[in-house]
Amino acid sequence: MAKEGAQMTEETEFMIDKNVGKETENVQSSSDAKEMRAVILAGFGGLNKLRVTKKAMPELQEGEVKIRVKACGLNFLDLMVRQGTIDNPPKPPLVPGFECSGIVESVAENKTGFEIGDRVMAFVNYNAWAEVVCTPVDFVYKMPDEMSFAEAAAFSLNFVAAYMMLFEVANLREGMSVLVHSAGGGVGQAVAQLCSTVPNVTVFGIASSSKHAAIRDSVTHLFDRNVDYMQEIKKISPEGVDIVLDSLCGENTGKGLSLLRPLGTYILYGASNMVTGETKSFFSFAKSWWQVEKVNPIKLYEENKVIAGFSLLNLLFKHGKCSLVKSVMDKLLCLYNQKKIRPVVDSLWALEEVKEAMQRIHDRVNIGKLILDVEKTPTPLMANDSTETSEAGEEEEEPEGDNDSKERMPFIH
Amino acid sequence: MAKEGAQMTEETEFMIDKNVGKETENVQSSSDAKEMRAVILAGFGGLNKLRVTKKAMPELQEGEVKIRVKACGLNFLDLMVRQGTIDNPPKPPLVPGFECSGIVESVAENKTGFEIGDRVMAFVNYNAWAEVVCTPVDFVYKMPDEMSFAEAAAFSLNFVAAYMMLFEVANLREGMSVLVHSAGGGVGQAVAQLCSTVPNVTVFGIASSSKHAAIRDSVTHLFDRNVDYMQEIKKISPEGVDIVLDSLCGENTGKGLSLLRPLGTYILYGASNMVTGETKSFFSFAKSWWQVEKVNPIKLYEENKVIAGFSLLNLLFKHGKCSLVKSVMDKLLCLYNQKKIRPVVDSLWALEEVKEAMQRIHDRVNIGKLILDVEKTPTPLMANDSTETSEAGEEEEEPEGDNDSKERMPFIH
Repeated sequence: MAKEGAQMTEETEFMIDKNVGKETENVQSSSDAKEMRAVILAGFGGLNKLRVTKKAMPELQEGEVKIRVKACGLNFLDLMVRQGTIDNPPKPPLVPGFECSGIVESVAENKTGFEIGDRVMAFVNYNAWAEVVCTPVDFVYKMPDEMSFAEAAAFSLNFVAAYMMLFEVANLREGMSVLVHSAGGGVGQAVAQLCSTVPNVTVFGIASSSKHAAIRDSVTHLFDRNVDYMQEIKKISPEGVDIVLDSLCGENTGKGLSLLRPLGTYILYGASNMVTGETKSFFSFAKSWWQVEKVNPIKLYEENKVIAGFSLLNLLFKHGKCSLVKSVMDKLLCLYNQKKIRPVVDSLWALEEVKEAMQRIHDRVNIGKLILDVEKTPTPLMANDSTETSEAGEEEEEPEGDNDSKERMPFIH
Repeated sequence: MAKEGAQMTEETEFMIDKNVGKETENVQSSSDAKEMRAVILAGFGGLNKLRVTKKAMPELQEGEVKIRVKACGLNFLDLMVRQGTIDNPPKPPLVPGFECSGIVESVAENKTGFEIGDRVMAFVNYNAWAEVVCTPVDFVYKMPDEMSFAEAAAFSLNFVAAYMMLFEVANLREGMSVLVHSAGGGVGQAVAQLCSTVPNVTVFGIASSSKHAAIRDSVTHLFDRNVDYMQEIKKISPEGVDIVLDSLCGENTGKGLSLLRPLGTYILYGASNMVTGETKSFFSFAKSWWQVEKVNPIKLYEENKVIAGFSLLNLLFKHGKCSLVKSVMDKLLCLYNQKKIRPVVDSLWALEEVKEAMQRIHDRVNIGKLILDVEKTPTPLMANDSTETSEAGEEEEEPEGDNDSKERMPFIH
């Protein structure tokens, strides 16, 4: 295994060199080739399981649209995929990634509503981190003219998830209050913007202190991740809050439930506390699962509370709710066109920089979304780069104020 | 204790005789007296803990309205109060009852919005089963002119609960499906009517076979309580249902959750399975509590499901949501005035017949609401009446098709 790991690292660096030249000189011609560049996850584990390689282009199946990818979204969930800490992951090797934007290259039938050359964004059930993607027409949406490819890749997953949680699962209305963990992340920023479309909504955000300056204006009250946020919120709103959006799980579930006002809704939409270090730790995964307090429905009855779980990917790819998601996307694009919402892009990365990008999202230093820009030239690795060894240890809390991070990431948007 | 029980039974019968004459001859003059008739629960336990007696009239407190009661609603919850199987019951002796209709007799201040003589319906935090009731102005609502007092006493709790569950907790919309247990009961009938105000809603109802003829038209699909309803529903709707309304608890909680479609909502709004016989059985209560399967939030996340608890009484009297309830009542009265909804009254009972009424609701043979009609003359007990001894035993499933019931209850509406 150690040998395999070393081989992969060399191979990745080889791919980076090889592709830099190819990409910058010859982007268009690659559409004629049978091969494409893609990020491959060779097996579950650390960053060294990721590499950029050539693979055969996907073939268009019935009901699908083939997209020449321009940008891909990188989500916390992709870390969990890498570690294998998601439910029923597919067998590696696999191409990660669930969302992208790009240009329609071909369509399987005439009645898809899409034409060659359309600028689109799309959900993909894996395989998004590649130069070409095929995905069912139900998961493809036309981009507004003024939306950039980077914005589009930052839009779909975060805004659809935020919208559905606030307006489909919960019932956000005037005068309500919302607590959002990871307020600086992609979903957190989407939640804050969508809350601002409803009059008089109070948003309690939780984020690392290092992000506070950047996101202070997006929420009503901002708390540091390390303070006792329950106490702080109860000082401001003794009755609690109407909606709690929790992507962390673990002990935050019990805290979130106890912060709910009567008729309030707690929504679990992620379990990022399950990711504790670079490599998959089945022990920590199992521990998190069992540490989650189970809920007695009779307690919910006595307290008039609602607890929900929300997984957009399961909704799309397991539960067949694509027409509902389509209607939500229509509403969101309407809000975008009215300039009421706008995706926040944290930084752009070449495919070959996927490890650095993942390290950044792991360290939770991003403000908004990380984008893999398929046409971007990778930055040569710096001498003091230490991605392979700097990852947070098993017990380490999210490192904050990492002075190295800016140095390692020159493409912050 | 046995002696006390025997004494009470004699006293109740004495009260019945005494009050029959009084009520029929002299209804109006009682408003001048300092005493009133009321149903008293002497202690938690069986039917023999109930009696009708004279007690001092309540005095109007600041912010209250005094109501000369015409009719009171009898709910399954009142059985649980009698047995002491609710959370934090007040110390007996107490006057049961949470809702009534009547005429405003006096108001504490001028700015209440009510005038003497107004026809009103009201929520009361206990004490409703009496000739006179005082309750905070926030819990009082004007009755439409065409609504009878019996209808009004059947309206508030059932329709507000049904409406809030369907439209506040869940988000009932066109094309959805709803499963309701106890479809023949007060809430069940309100749910069925409210569902019919939304286009293309499928209602799956569960009720004893004996009720099927009476309620068949109110729901889309009707199942017997004793069949495997999960299997029957899955035959019709393999994907499951969008909303499950469960007043039973126990094993139905797990079944309800597994019947939910993605983004579906299970709402527990009662725990009538906890009532197993005439007398309080703490063991059966505790057993039910622990038998309820606790829910892992991560499972909800993976399955995109929502679980909620709803207790209207806690919402009103503990959680201070009376202004929200007021807005719901306004919408409901609008629907009533448009003749889109109408409370179903099962039967009317004199205060002195409260035991027979409770037996009927315990046996779950009612279609719609049981009403205590304060001005009604009690029917002389029949020779073959066996209320005191006929209650269901600890292990007995709801007796159905009881041929005696009609004989004992000549005032079925």
